[in-house]
Amino acid sequence: MEIKVMKRVLDRNQDKAEQIRSLLKEKKVCMYNLISSPGAGKTTLLEQTCRHLNHQMRVGIIEGDVYTDRDAQRLKKYGFPIVLINTEGGCHLDSNSIEGALKEFDLDQMDLSFVENVGNLVCPSHFDLGETAKIAVVSTSEGDDKPIKYPMLFRDARAVILNKIDLLEYTNFNYEAFVEDLRQVNPSVPLFETSCTRGEGLEGWFQWLKTEVG
Amino acid sequence: MEIKVMKRVLDRNQDKAEQIRSLLKEKKVCMYNLISSPGAGKTTLLEQTCRHLNHQMRVGIIEGDVYTDRDAQRLKKYGFPIVLINTEGGCHLDSNSIEGALKEFDLDQMDLSFVENVGNLVCPSHFDLGETAKIAVVSTSEGDDKPIKYPMLFRDARAVILNKIDLLEYTNFNYEAFVEDLRQVNPSVPLFETSCTRGEGLEGWFQWLKTEVG
Repeated sequence: MEIKVMKRVLDRNQDKAEQIRSLLKEKKVCMYNLISSPGAGKTTLLEQTCRHLNHQMRVGIIEGDVYTDRDAQRLKKYGFPIVLINTEGGCHLDSNSIEGALKEFDLDQMDLSFVENVGNLVCPSHFDLGETAKIAVVSTSEGDDKPIKYPMLFRDARAVILNKIDLLEYTNFNYEAFVEDLRQVNPSVPLFETSCTRGEGLEGWFQWLKTEVG
Repeated sequence: MEIKVMKRVLDRNQDKAEQIRSLLKEKKVCMYNLISSPGAGKTTLLEQTCRHLNHQMRVGIIEGDVYTDRDAQRLKKYGFPIVLINTEGGCHLDSNSIEGALKEFDLDQMDLSFVENVGNLVCPSHFDLGETAKIAVVSTSEGDDKPIKYPMLFRDARAVILNKIDLLEYTNFNYEAFVEDLRQVNPSVPLFETSCTRGEGLEGWFQWLKTEVG
């Protein structure tokens, strides 16, 4: 019985996700779902991306956090509209909460939306939000074994950002092993190596985003 | 309806956890449930702890991982029995899987058990495994805001390990802000600052563990 109900939750999430996908297509808005461990650098990536895209694209940000508005506070200075979803203990965003958040935006005046999911490598990868694509963010200080230990996200991601590349030399992160594991899970996904705190290595990511959004 | 069934899952988990707690008390075995983000250093902490406790205490290790036996492989050289639980996509361990794992040990010949939970700051903190205590592991490279953003774990933890202290100088981790947030959530929890890869700062943790196990 528990399995049946869980399936119903996922089915309902999927139905709503498909409605969101249709709406975004109609409105010509791309939506990227950023997923990572806690502290891998999603918010700092968004800060750099918002700064870069200012006056180039019209962005809407959906911030998912278990509690607090700390990430949303960090992002508000870039002048783009932000909707904060506090899950109050919940481990991921779902399509229902995204539907509500999107109603706060004027989608006719928007090119692009970022969803910063709850910091969690497991649960968010099970829930379709109707996004254009999932983006995996992983940092060198987490170790090189994440793609093989948490394959669900890396298999589905349309781009992978390896962040904190500036810390690589101080850790035992094995770059070759990381790439080998990533390629085993997802042979062709673009990989961008960045230091978001330093603002380094981001050109490839910006370029990819512009090409994708079109 | 979904809420009702979820409640039943949690109730059933809690009942089993209480049975485990009684069994461990009867057998005089302490069990510590290690919880952290992916890549914070739980396995390296266990490696250092197993090396230190060798010939001093009889340890049994329960390794929780979504997929792969990589962490279990890293730990087997210390000569303690290990049971691996692969959750196959699941985001946390539950008391049912722990009950099964404990049957693989001879509890009459054991002082201490470590459970390495799935790398996840959210879900594992909702599920009582019948452990003696939860231990929170967090690393400097994740940023200083984790206690306030993921308060469930830090509120319940009986000890907090701040790992990767060797990376602190290369990050924007604000130590004072971290301690302030931690104290807001849990005023009195012992805090140990370690570099598990370097084997530094572990004496306090070892001493605490010996006092706790008695």
